[in-house]
Amino acid sequence: MRRLKVVDGAPAACCSPIAARAMSEDDAETTASVFKALSDPGRVRILNLLATSAQPVCVCHITPEVGLSQPTVSFHLKKLVQAGLLEREQRGVWAFYSVNRDALKRLGKVFELEGVRA
Amino acid sequence: MRRLKVVDGAPAACCSPIAARAMSEDDAETTASVFKALSDPGRVRILNLLATSAQPVCVCHITPEVGLSQPTVSFHLKKLVQAGLLEREQRGVWAFYSVNRDALKRLGKVFELEGVRA
Repeated sequence: MRRLKVVDGAPAACCSPIAARAMSEDDAETTASVFKALSDPGRVRILNLLATSAQPVCVCHITPEVGLSQPTVSFHLKKLVQAGLLEREQRGVWAFYSVNRDALKRLGKVFELEGVRA
Repeated sequence: MRRLKVVDGAPAACCSPIAARAMSEDDAETTASVFKALSDPGRVRILNLLATSAQPVCVCHITPEVGLSQPTVSFHLKKLVQAGLLEREQRGVWAFYSVNRDALKRLGKVFELEGVRA
């Protein structure tokens, strides 16, 4: 398995646009890994919960909100943090999570077809 | 397994923004299914090849270009078409593929955080 190219510690920090003229195999693997992190409905709902919150959300509130077991939520959160889509902050005994707004902004640009080719 | 909500025949036709105030479980499942279709480096490279082509590309040119076996490429193409990310056109004995530009545009908007919440 090839190592993922990681910038700033996470794949979502460096996705090439889909319409990039020169996309390497490493680039494709990095981009695919970010989409893989998003390929579960529970993770999409966690991301939605955090994207609609003005403040970081305690893991103790995320679990009841998404209606999944605590270990499942923890696993999803770990994958989303590893992909660079979420940020994690420890406050005493609880972890608080928020979306990485820069990463989502970059991810939106991955699908831009115009301009990239100019 | 819940049936995916499908508009215009494919999941990518109807993705809710990540920051949508009311995301149903069906919405989350549909969005996740589109990302799942993109969670393979071969599919990202196929999408890249087609996104950088001004014309639909014959499957006979896609296979050598991405360096994967013909059955693998066919499988990836099928999944990408089913997700609504590609369009397929039969010309004689060959199938030609192109990116669904509207679907990619909508997918880019899935990650928009500003405006959606206003």
